[in-house]
Amino acid sequence: MHKRGTKPDKIDRLEPKVRQGLIVVITGNGKGKTTAALGMALRACGHRMRVCIIQFMKGDIYAGEWDAVRQMDCDIELIATGKGFCGIQGNPYPWTEHRANAQDAIDLANEKLTAGCCDLLILDEINNALKLKLIDLDQVLALLQTRPPMLHLVLTGRDAHPEVVALADTVSEVREIKHAYRRDIEPQPGIDY
Amino acid sequence: MHKRGTKPDKIDRLEPKVRQGLIVVITGNGKGKTTAALGMALRACGHRMRVCIIQFMKGDIYAGEWDAVRQMDCDIELIATGKGFCGIQGNPYPWTEHRANAQDAIDLANEKLTAGCCDLLILDEINNALKLKLIDLDQVLALLQTRPPMLHLVLTGRDAHPEVVALADTVSEVREIKHAYRRDIEPQPGIDY
Repeated sequence: MHKRGTKPDKIDRLEPKVRQGLIVVITGNGKGKTTAALGMALRACGHRMRVCIIQFMKGDIYAGEWDAVRQMDCDIELIATGKGFCGIQGNPYPWTEHRANAQDAIDLANEKLTAGCCDLLILDEINNALKLKLIDLDQVLALLQTRPPMLHLVLTGRDAHPEVVALADTVSEVREIKHAYRRDIEPQPGIDY
Repeated sequence: MHKRGTKPDKIDRLEPKVRQGLIVVITGNGKGKTTAALGMALRACGHRMRVCIIQFMKGDIYAGEWDAVRQMDCDIELIATGKGFCGIQGNPYPWTEHRANAQDAIDLANEKLTAGCCDLLILDEINNALKLKLIDLDQVLALLQTRPPMLHLVLTGRDAHPEVVALADTVSEVREIKHAYRRDIEPQPGIDY
């Protein structure tokens, strides 16, 4: 790994005395929420953990992560369940269709949660889906409460609900300081999608 | 990709009219900076872009991403150049050794920048290294100014320098709302390292 610099005397391998699953929430209005979740997926793959990513409200615009997971020699699955962001300009689908898809995504999340088939379950944009009432608070709280204690659950998206934040172990708010699109720079592959 | 929900009528592939490299800074005191950079690496791999990750001040503690990049069938390289976080409790190396390693890392970053061998160059914890005076502001500004216009450059770490922020296209601050370690939960593999 070290090609430059002098090597450290030894490389430590952390091993927590107590292993436990964490609830991690990544919220806020800045760039880096989904990407942080994808980074945890990558990191978990390095530990040979089994990863499942369920994307809410995504599926209408190609994203690099869809192909990236196929290039990885590890147990990672990505399921995009949506039709794009509900209510944003240019999205042609009515709220009822977005709601139906998000309800399917919640059912799928419950299946994954209880099947014991993954060590890290990422629910991408679920906070947003809750804010837009595509899913209900009770459904999200039920997910958190039935989570097996060793399963890591990561919830991304703006406007995380205070009750979800209250139940989480680690919560980060990604704040926009500046963003290229405000200077009319179009989304760039690899960075923005 | 869609296993649940009804599919959208079509999947769009965004293609910016103008392609350009972006300077992205991920700073702040919360969890998710390195992971967001790793997520961009993953996403870029999906687009078949060439990725190089240089980690400053890391190399003494195993991290999942070191093995994850080896499991990926794509052009991604990760080089950990350091001996851990300079000045934190338990780190036995003097500032001069950390500085020497960070100087090697900067040389390497300059080589990668000018060699045209990658489309996305991630300089992980470089903000931190600058703050700790392991590298100099002039060195970082020189990197930003000599960047080929199509290269994406991502700089992570707390305490990003205002002059670096000023030159960046997109800047996010990851704020800690809560963190498991404050409740004495040890770092967990796949999530924290």
